[in-house]
Amino acid sequence: MIKQKRIRDYGVTIGKLKTGSKNAITDVDGVTVGHVTLKNGDTQTGVTTILPHQGNVFKEKVIASSHVINGFGKTMGLMQINELGTIETPILLTNTLSIGAAADALIEYMLDNNTEIGKTTGTVNPIVCECNDMFLNDIRARNITKQHVFDAIVNASPTFEEGSIGAGRGMLCYSLKGGIGTSSRIIDMKHGSYTLGVLTLTNFGILSDLVIAGKPIGQELKEHLIQAKNDKDKGSVIIIVATDLPVSERQLNRIIKRAVTGLARTGSIITTGSGEVVIGFSTATKIPHENPYSSVPVSTIHEEDIDKAFRAVGEATEEAVLNSLITATHVIGREGNERPTLQDLINKHHISLC
Amino acid sequence: MIKQKRIRDYGVTIGKLKTGSKNAITDVDGVTVGHVTLKNGDTQTGVTTILPHQGNVFKEKVIASSHVINGFGKTMGLMQINELGTIETPILLTNTLSIGAAADALIEYMLDNNTEIGKTTGTVNPIVCECNDMFLNDIRARNITKQHVFDAIVNASPTFEEGSIGAGRGMLCYSLKGGIGTSSRIIDMKHGSYTLGVLTLTNFGILSDLVIAGKPIGQELKEHLIQAKNDKDKGSVIIIVATDLPVSERQLNRIIKRAVTGLARTGSIITTGSGEVVIGFSTATKIPHENPYSSVPVSTIHEEDIDKAFRAVGEATEEAVLNSLITATHVIGREGNERPTLQDLINKHHISLC
Amino acid sequence: MIKQKRIRDYGVTIGKLKTGSKNAITDVDGVTVGHVTLKNGDTQTGVTTILPHQGNVFKEKVIASSHVINGFGKTMGLMQINELGTIETPILLTNTLSIGAAADALIEYMLDNNTEIGKTTGTVNPIVCECNDMFLNDIRARNITKQHVFDAIVNASPTFEEGSIGAGRGMLCYSLKGGIGTSSRIIDMKHGSYTLGVLTLTNFGILSDLVIAGKPIGQELKEHLIQAKNDKDKGSVIIIVATDLPVSERQLNRIIKRAVTGLARTGSIITTGSGEVVIGFSTATKIPHENPYSSVPVSTIHEEDIDKAFRAVGEATEEAVLNSLITATHVIGREGNERPTLQDLINKHHISLC
Amino acid sequence: MIKQKRIRDYGVTIGKLKTGSKNAITDVDGVTVGHVTLKNGDTQTGVTTILPHQGNVFKEKVIASSHVINGFGKTMGLMQINELGTIETPILLTNTLSIGAAADALIEYMLDNNTEIGKTTGTVNPIVCECNDMFLNDIRARNITKQHVFDAIVNASPTFEEGSIGAGRGMLCYSLKGGIGTSSRIIDMKHGSYTLGVLTLTNFGILSDLVIAGKPIGQELKEHLIQAKNDKDKGSVIIIVATDLPVSERQLNRIIKRAVTGLARTGSIITTGSGEVVIGFSTATKIPHENPYSSVPVSTIHEEDIDKAFRAVGEATEEAVLNSLITATHVIGREGNERPTLQDLINKHHISLC
Repeated sequence: MIKQKRIRDYGVTIGKLKTGSKNAITDVDGVTVGHVTLKNGDTQTGVTTILPHQGNVFKEKVIASSHVINGFGKTMGLMQINELGTIETPILLTNTLSIGAAADALIEYMLDNNTEIGKTTGTVNPIVCECNDMFLNDIRARNITKQHVFDAIVNASPTFEEGSIGAGRGMLCYSLKGGIGTSSRIIDMKHGSYTLGVLTLTNFGILSDLVIAGKPIGQELKEHLIQAKNDKDKGSVIIIVATDLPVSERQLNRIIKRAVTGLARTGSIITTGSGEVVIGFSTATKIPHENPYSSVPVSTIHEEDIDKAFRAVGEATEEAVLNSLITATHVIGREGNERPTLQDLINKHHISLC
Repeated sequence: MIKQKRIRDYGVTIGKLKTGSKNAITDVDGVTVGHVTLKNGDTQTGVTTILPHQGNVFKEKVIASSHVINGFGKTMGLMQINELGTIETPILLTNTLSIGAAADALIEYMLDNNTEIGKTTGTVNPIVCECNDMFLNDIRARNITKQHVFDAIVNASPTFEEGSIGAGRGMLCYSLKGGIGTSSRIIDMKHGSYTLGVLTLTNFGILSDLVIAGKPIGQELKEHLIQAKNDKDKGSVIIIVATDLPVSERQLNRIIKRAVTGLARTGSIITTGSGEVVIGFSTATKIPHENPYSSVPVSTIHEEDIDKAFRAVGEATEEAVLNSLITATHVIGREGNERPTLQDLINKHHISLC
Repeated sequence: MIKQKRIRDYGVTIGKLKTGSKNAITDVDGVTVGHVTLKNGDTQTGVTTILPHQGNVFKEKVIASSHVINGFGKTMGLMQINELGTIETPILLTNTLSIGAAADALIEYMLDNNTEIGKTTGTVNPIVCECNDMFLNDIRARNITKQHVFDAIVNASPTFEEGSIGAGRGMLCYSLKGGIGTSSRIIDMKHGSYTLGVLTLTNFGILSDLVIAGKPIGQELKEHLIQAKNDKDKGSVIIIVATDLPVSERQLNRIIKRAVTGLARTGSIITTGSGEVVIGFSTATKIPHENPYSSVPVSTIHEEDIDKAFRAVGEATEEAVLNSLITATHVIGREGNERPTLQDLINKHHISLC
Repeated sequence: MIKQKRIRDYGVTIGKLKTGSKNAITDVDGVTVGHVTLKNGDTQTGVTTILPHQGNVFKEKVIASSHVINGFGKTMGLMQINELGTIETPILLTNTLSIGAAADALIEYMLDNNTEIGKTTGTVNPIVCECNDMFLNDIRARNITKQHVFDAIVNASPTFEEGSIGAGRGMLCYSLKGGIGTSSRIIDMKHGSYTLGVLTLTNFGILSDLVIAGKPIGQELKEHLIQAKNDKDKGSVIIIVATDLPVSERQLNRIIKRAVTGLARTGSIITTGSGEVVIGFSTATKIPHENPYSSVPVSTIHEEDIDKAFRAVGEATEEAVLNSLITATHVIGREGNERPTLQDLINKHHISLC
């Protein structure tokens, strides 16, 4: 990963399982992440993309599932994920009011790369997720363009930055600066060693609720942050789960539903205005777009083995949220709005995280 | 099948696909059906069982899914079907207020045949479905006993009777005598020929809505049936779908959701008091109860091939409902209540079904 | 309504209930419908809007619910409808690949009319539905612009055209020309007389399945239509249900789920590639955007009274589909593609619909 | 409440909101709880009932909702709760394999008290929840009888015992003795002060995961408990939420979904074999069984006010789980099996909970 001081570098360990080598969603082989960041005065926003594999995702779809923790939000593409159990495009994250423009750009990208769409083979289901960055970003300006989306896809790489970057540029989390965070876990089974990675776009919560590894840090910090006292959560969180575990859509759905355990352990009460959506995919099985005129074999785990994946997704989600907070850098945005970073606060007030 | 005059014997053909050899749910290899019928004065009820295969279903589970068309009802076991995607017991059908007793009996049957349950291996999820036969049956008496359930399981056979039999004994359908009906369809794919069968327990609808192969027979018949004029539907219908098609739980769920198209074509508007539940299973994959410590391969169809199964389930459901009506025999029940059979009415009034 | 020959003008009556005065979704007081149609060579597409009431829908939301019959599709906004039980924008219908652009336009419209969005009051949930018109329209060109969306909203009126108009311009239904159709029913209860109206955007089915009021017209017509023989359904149908019945979100959801009975009676088997989505709203209760700091009273019907609404929605959906077919006019589109209209075919071959 | 030392008596405070006067589900006016406990050698089990109000629940139903966190389980009655949005019987909790017998007993109780059921007014939907107590109880013996169920209903009272009592008699939680726990919170809104109470039947988790108010007590305790090292969770948890908040079924569903935040904060990862089900009801609106032939007014909260209820349900669930653990008393059961209580362990090893 890009050199940044992450939550483990502060002595905080989350959970019992080992992390992958990068402790990132890109520990899942083939997965890459790209950012485009807009940072200019009142415009503090961006696009983040997650590519499930390096082939043509439309032609070789991956098994996928979604879970809505709280449906205040505008995420596109969930209906078809649930019906067909696959995704067929990169996943885009951006700000709420740019979702139309981002979808349009993703459609164009898919058309350009698959000339049969809309001619001989039906349409394509773009996956676009969003959080509301209106505090730091002039969201009404809707500054995301097609080129930003194309660039974020082209930029995608196994190593990537966390914090105030890409779609995370203008986000707040627990009344502090939020954004992009990631983490991963290794899942050992008798028939192999697998990886599960999580990427979060964090934009939820109020300071007094923040808990780090069981410690009520938010209670301590709120003394130092007058602004946070009247905070109202109008946030959101998007959680992307990638794995190479051989699973059915049903099993994958069971796994991603457990992301909420990690969220809750950071202190979230899941407020009404917080759109909280999980999308997961498994790279273990590729589903061909074209009918092979044979049956399609899907490798799955025995249900008794699934608890390790449940533990992994909770731990990785919790750590990804904390990584988003601790790596976030200071942003001054719309009408001069700003929020402290976790790093600034603990340094200034000599607070230990563990 | 047991010799009965069925809807095709009246010149009525439903749909475009070929039927299986018995035109019954038991055309799916390994599936058997058993009945126990109570017919004594005010007691007009029974039990019907469907066995997914002839091995130990607890040890070799079958992939399953359920769909609630209208959830006014007490069907047991759906929650775990949806979570785990399997069934592990025979399926029982009976009257509404006997559901507790039937579940208790099915639990006992499973304990007797699997001595490890509740000792070394957790519990078992009994599947019990019901309709309300209170018009013809003294449902408050709850006359179903354990022995009835055990007998219905032991009686199960590839050939079985339709109409006023088993759980269908006291049921009404479209204000006429209803009960058990079945039908099947052959699904030809490039990689093989498969069978999909449906069994319905029919207890829904009002006469004026009845349609047979597009013909509004109910409108004609209602002239002859004063009683039907003030009818209110308090019914239900249970639809069991069996197939040997290789499908995932998600695909199976898509298939069984289409049963409603067949129901609707018989005239149903799906009234509020009508519990309408579909449970489907595929015998193509057996899921072992014991962890094999390897991955579990599941064979699935390509999504483009699924339309034939959609057509099959609609056609077989429509025909199964009509078979339940046309094979039903006259029953005098609780407090002398009775309803005409479709056969009696059309004979008496010289009405042609096609 | 605009003077067009509709299905009742051919002697076909659907169901038992009375229609509203216009036999249209706009029989529900306050509801209006607008079209913008693009018809120029390879571009045969458009936008249709449904306005729930004539006030500010963002400030006075209406109770709403959605139901996915088949989730192959890209409809936007369902997640938040399900979570919050309201809609807060007009409903847009357009072609599949223009969904991003249409959403972006609808967002802009809402921002222009509600300057507090994204500044002091969070975001807005645009409702955009789509069908794939790629046979007649060059869908890859994505010709829908913001102005088309704005115009379709401004054009909205209690009277409107059906058939090859608005979003229906390029659609096919049962291998014939499809498009926009509407119908309504009156629901009489002890406590008042209510209206339920349906608008459909039809783009599904193959000719041999078409049934009109029980008559297998499709079987007759297919003799005359060589092209239809190898047809594969890649369609969709969007069903919008409006009512002034006082209902909770749960009750409304139960009602709109029954739209499928009407669809099935026109012959649909609900193919895998057909995105079929129902969105319903009730104008009986307005939910204020701003917190009134008091409780919000919601008037509901007693569950025993709901069957009439179930019947109404099935009948109105069936008739709306038939109206879309019979009012559709001939369109020559992309690469000279065309399909006969139902009207042309029955005239040419002297076929009676009833 | 019955005099027992509860988690607050150890200096542990959960959350920010005030508790009700009893800190129990029965702080919601009208709600009562009853237990019958079987404690005799290998038989260590029981029944617990929750009565939503003191009138006839069948005739005056309460608005209700259910949420399945993990559907490995056999809870009865959820389908109809979700369809109709009400409950019409007391809620029963017992052991898994007694669910049939308990349902049958509850049906009998309802028939005895409502002689019109099954004669003039359809059927009744019994609510029965279960956990698997097979470690301490000979669950195969199925010792729950009708009389036990009747007694538990008659015993119901505003004050009741927690811990190894009623259905909680044989349960384990975090490898320690579990059982019944309860807690409540006060929700202040501009239009009134409301109460939300939770009762949990706890039977889930492994010791090393146990967290008390952020402190990883399980990690400390596992040093002292060899047995726990190989533990596998085959548990469950049932969570009953009562409130007098005026809410729609949809709002209630949103509230009860947040119970999982409290569970997660006690350390749960929600294992595959743990049936985790939440059932909630609001006493604010009574829905009449008989049709009043008028509309039915339902008072709801404005959505912006719901966050307090979200916080309340998470806090009360977390505290109820901890109360079940700390009040549980030592039980020697089936084949001499036993587990330490939390109280015993912390006393013996001088461990502080806060």
